[in-house]
Amino acid sequence: MPAEPRLLANAIRALSMDAVQAANSGHPGMPMGMADVATVLFTDYLKFDPQDPEWHDRDRFVLSAGHGSMLIYSLLHLTGYAHPTMDEIRSFRQLNSPCAGHPENFLMKGVEATTGPLGQGFAMAVGMAIAERHLNATFGDALVDHHTWVLAGDGCLMEGINHEAVGLAGHLKLGRLNVIWDNNKITIDGSTDLSTSEDIPARYRASGWHVVSCDGHDFADIRRALDEAKADPRPSLIDCRTIIGYGAPNKQGTSATHGAALGDAEVAAARETLGWSSAPFELPQAVVDAWREAGRRHAASRAEWRARLAADPQRDEFLRRMEGRLPESGAKDAYLDWLIANPQKVATRRASELALEAINEALPETIGGSADLTGSNNTKTKAQKPLTANDYSGRYIYYGIREFGMSAAMNGMALHGGVIPYGGTFLVFSDYCRPAIRLSALQNARVVYVMTHDSIGLGEDGPTHQPVEHVMSLRMIPNLAVYRPADAVETAECWALSLERTDGPSLLALTRQNLPQFRDQRTENLCARGAYRARAAKAARKVVLLATGSEVETAMHAADALEAQGIGADVVSMPCWSLFDAQDAAYRADLIPSDALKVSIEAGTTLGWERYTGLEGLRIGLDRFGASAPAGDLFKRFGFTAEAIVPQILAALNQGDQ
Amino acid sequence: MPAEPRLLANAIRALSMDAVQAANSGHPGMPMGMADVATVLFTDYLKFDPQDPEWHDRDRFVLSAGHGSMLIYSLLHLTGYAHPTMDEIRSFRQLNSPCAGHPENFLMKGVEATTGPLGQGFAMAVGMAIAERHLNATFGDALVDHHTWVLAGDGCLMEGINHEAVGLAGHLKLGRLNVIWDNNKITIDGSTDLSTSEDIPARYRASGWHVVSCDGHDFADIRRALDEAKADPRPSLIDCRTIIGYGAPNKQGTSATHGAALGDAEVAAARETLGWSSAPFELPQAVVDAWREAGRRHAASRAEWRARLAADPQRDEFLRRMEGRLPESGAKDAYLDWLIANPQKVATRRASELALEAINEALPETIGGSADLTGSNNTKTKAQKPLTANDYSGRYIYYGIREFGMSAAMNGMALHGGVIPYGGTFLVFSDYCRPAIRLSALQNARVVYVMTHDSIGLGEDGPTHQPVEHVMSLRMIPNLAVYRPADAVETAECWALSLERTDGPSLLALTRQNLPQFRDQRTENLCARGAYRARAAKAARKVVLLATGSEVETAMHAADALEAQGIGADVVSMPCWSLFDAQDAAYRADLIPSDALKVSIEAGTTLGWERYTGLEGLRIGLDRFGASAPAGDLFKRFGFTAEAIVPQILAALNQGDQ
Repeated sequence: MPAEPRLLANAIRALSMDAVQAANSGHPGMPMGMADVATVLFTDYLKFDPQDPEWHDRDRFVLSAGHGSMLIYSLLHLTGYAHPTMDEIRSFRQLNSPCAGHPENFLMKGVEATTGPLGQGFAMAVGMAIAERHLNATFGDALVDHHTWVLAGDGCLMEGINHEAVGLAGHLKLGRLNVIWDNNKITIDGSTDLSTSEDIPARYRASGWHVVSCDGHDFADIRRALDEAKADPRPSLIDCRTIIGYGAPNKQGTSATHGAALGDAEVAAARETLGWSSAPFELPQAVVDAWREAGRRHAASRAEWRARLAADPQRDEFLRRMEGRLPESGAKDAYLDWLIANPQKVATRRASELALEAINEALPETIGGSADLTGSNNTKTKAQKPLTANDYSGRYIYYGIREFGMSAAMNGMALHGGVIPYGGTFLVFSDYCRPAIRLSALQNARVVYVMTHDSIGLGEDGPTHQPVEHVMSLRMIPNLAVYRPADAVETAECWALSLERTDGPSLLALTRQNLPQFRDQRTENLCARGAYRARAAKAARKVVLLATGSEVETAMHAADALEAQGIGADVVSMPCWSLFDAQDAAYRADLIPSDALKVSIEAGTTLGWERYTGLEGLRIGLDRFGASAPAGDLFKRFGFTAEAIVPQILAALNQGDQ
Repeated sequence: MPAEPRLLANAIRALSMDAVQAANSGHPGMPMGMADVATVLFTDYLKFDPQDPEWHDRDRFVLSAGHGSMLIYSLLHLTGYAHPTMDEIRSFRQLNSPCAGHPENFLMKGVEATTGPLGQGFAMAVGMAIAERHLNATFGDALVDHHTWVLAGDGCLMEGINHEAVGLAGHLKLGRLNVIWDNNKITIDGSTDLSTSEDIPARYRASGWHVVSCDGHDFADIRRALDEAKADPRPSLIDCRTIIGYGAPNKQGTSATHGAALGDAEVAAARETLGWSSAPFELPQAVVDAWREAGRRHAASRAEWRARLAADPQRDEFLRRMEGRLPESGAKDAYLDWLIANPQKVATRRASELALEAINEALPETIGGSADLTGSNNTKTKAQKPLTANDYSGRYIYYGIREFGMSAAMNGMALHGGVIPYGGTFLVFSDYCRPAIRLSALQNARVVYVMTHDSIGLGEDGPTHQPVEHVMSLRMIPNLAVYRPADAVETAECWALSLERTDGPSLLALTRQNLPQFRDQRTENLCARGAYRARAAKAARKVVLLATGSEVETAMHAADALEAQGIGADVVSMPCWSLFDAQDAAYRADLIPSDALKVSIEAGTTLGWERYTGLEGLRIGLDRFGASAPAGDLFKRFGFTAEAIVPQILAALNQGDQ
């Protein structure tokens, strides 16, 4: 490195404090504190090429402490990425700037993950490191041979998910994962002594990690630590003792630098302290040149990699997977043909397993798993070997009792690319995963959540395990496709849609209990429109029954009972609301006509169903917690039977006639 | 203990395997494996009296591994609690039995907490131990001097929340917390080796815990370990090496005993192995007598405690707090009078702080805190000292970056009684707390969640930090009162309702940005009805604007603009939907009449608002993720201005006229 490293680091400090000052909003302390470490990492260690931010064999760098976003923006700008430009940095935290308050993977190349919700960047990096080892085991060192680096703060380490991520990484011996800990002993509330007394290195060692410490402002010492971390076969925690806000003479080392602009006076004082005489958003040419040179470090190795790829017999398959294209396959049609010929009265979780048998054979890129409910979630297919520390080629992960860690790891895998992760738990524990599900959606990550035991149909385990509000509340997460299929055919269709979707996550809500297969004809994928008429009224239509999942069967029984009284009733199955809402008005009006009584049946909260029933319709649901009893008893107790529903419909029809 | 302890323990084993067998559903492995340890604990260590399950100075016992519910049901029955009766045990997991699949605190005395969602029982126990020390510091050893015991399995220890709970307990040096770890090396998926390689004792020591190990089937060794744990001033982890399903000769030690009935043959074989000849649900009288005698162990000490209480000068205050009765106080009226006289244009988070200044002075039982966002959540009032390991009398907890752990600890505090916990984080991180919020609601726990930065009004931090779906999805959790106040007066009213509510949690969604105080008259608590007319139309009413929180101001502006065009518009503020839905039909119809266009304005998901607007109404909301920019720019960008809204209303009115 030709230029004095402190000078390079000070460019990060200057850009960070100036951008935060201009926005009068942001977090200058972390970028200023970690500038020295980041300079060493980006100029001497990290494998990347700003000319090709999506180079498949680049090292992944995750800024888990996402509030320090000016660090990554500075680094990307300085090393020569096309973005952010200096103008974009000037507009930090302003409308339409790609330099958002927290780094957003969908706004800027080089930002590997959306971070900010603490702990999740770290846990996503674990998933990236899993994907790297798995693809390495599949495609070899010539194509896949990179490291995953994380920058994490005390917040990331204190969050519960950190325990799950650390445990999983240690168990899987992810030696290419190196976490740089910004050990500045400051959180927003003040000293870390206010809230924690933990010996963090000891905890990491207890989970099979290597820990090395260094002075985060001593360049030689930083290099020593990074060398040791890279060489060690275990995942590494690099404990960097740093001073938050380093360079701000009156505020450094205090929480005052954490989450607010330094103020003009302190910015000026920091310039003085750092010997930085350039105006805001201006950089000395020598500094720019040195950074750009560092950014060109791996141009040659990328060229060599491209040459190896071109010559590799697995080239096409590697690119197909990395680009997320599904293979050509007749598996889906064959499986659906088989289902029609051999109707399955099974739980939709079992139907999901049947579908997965076909999927996992046809799609070598899937990696399944469960948070210790493999046999209940039906997530493991027969041929799937476990992915373990001894065999990264496996395609099934025993995630342990780590729902949140599993979900975040899946996000990391999806963001890494080359694999399609799916993982299971009980639907009620989607609450444990929810912060990661939201990040799947925000990051446009192709992750499939297999959530079983999706209602009081779970039965005896009782209200702690019975989702009531979950399906509806998941429907509210933007860009999440929520599916609640009603039989084995719908389950297969929803799986197909989930896998074909490239710009976001899908969640399958599946039953514990058996359901009859009512779909008995080969058709186009009816679930693709979100809702469809599962049965048309025989008598003159007066009622439209709207249902999802296991309640479609109930709706069929109710329709039978109504028809027996000469009242025509459609049954509409609505496996995916967001897809239905995207249909044109004619399709929607045909399914949900204005001249019939609309009745929703779903074993969960009724709030939200007014969208389809209108206020004059009926909503059969459950607006309270469930109870512990056999499933059949519960459905009776809570009124999910034709016997309980039909009289309410008749009363409403009579009232409507008055 | 007169009887052979193994014989006493076998009574637990027999009841557990027989009840699970009768239900053909449940988890026999844990109760059978932990029967020996539980027998020692309940016959020689735990301070309790079945004659008074709510004895304020009893030890708390939390079965964090709630799936092993037959353990606690057996123990309560055997020691002589009124419930469960043997008939109730026979109906384990059946409709209306108090012996639910997982222990439910609202169904049976002696069940201190609802458990099952893994990790949370442990974390609630941390809160109970905090409450114990705090009340001890307040009322002295004579009244408050008990221990908190937890039984936890590998699942509880592997969950992320365990890290938060362990960190908090270690930091606060909660030496009276003793956690018994059922170290059976089995999870549902099989051996713990499938998913974890952690040195658990080392991790606990790293957080300031004491760890002791024992053979969980050697009674003397168990006693040695419990003695050591009780004597040590640190929180203790008691590592009990056990065999899951102990006594089932062909299945013990395997995951086959974990979550399913053993089967008739194996139950018979277990009887043989254990030398247990009694029929199902029958117990030898000698065993019953010995257990009942153990249950009478603390009758005398309870009598002494009652005598001490009767003589204690703080008796009335102690009972008031433990029984959850608020003190008589004019503080609320005085504060509201002051607000009316001195209207505050402040953020509702700041209005919450102002209210808390009055509340914390009037209510010595409140314990506040924040997950490292004290200055942002405005949760700390001036006089609040921190609650620390050196001073448990403090009333403010620096929870650290542990949202989920904080929430679960608050549940534990509320369940312990004697304190009213409130705690803060950003509303978007209600996702991190959500599993605990659900348990607050299910357990009827008086916990107040102070969730600030409640919309895109958060501004520059961007979509990871901007709640969109959160307010609506929280409304769907049964028994959770969700408040979104619109000004300083409403904030005070919502705080009053939250504190007056004794049968469940409340959640306050509060703004970052300033709002004008539109309430300028002293009235009854208008928020108590959930919604009320904040302004009546001047011209003939054609429109009713429904809004919450910061959007009430927007609605006022829109109403102004409509009135200027001669269109009468009511503005209805709806701070709490669940309270409004509980009003009578006349009140609801008066506020939301059928003869006006209903328009909802809320900076969040529109799904759900159809309940009040009907399908023909308008819903102004945000059905996508937000963005990073100053708040004002975002409200404009996403159409939350009178300028953007009024034309939509006019168009809808014109369409309605056609």
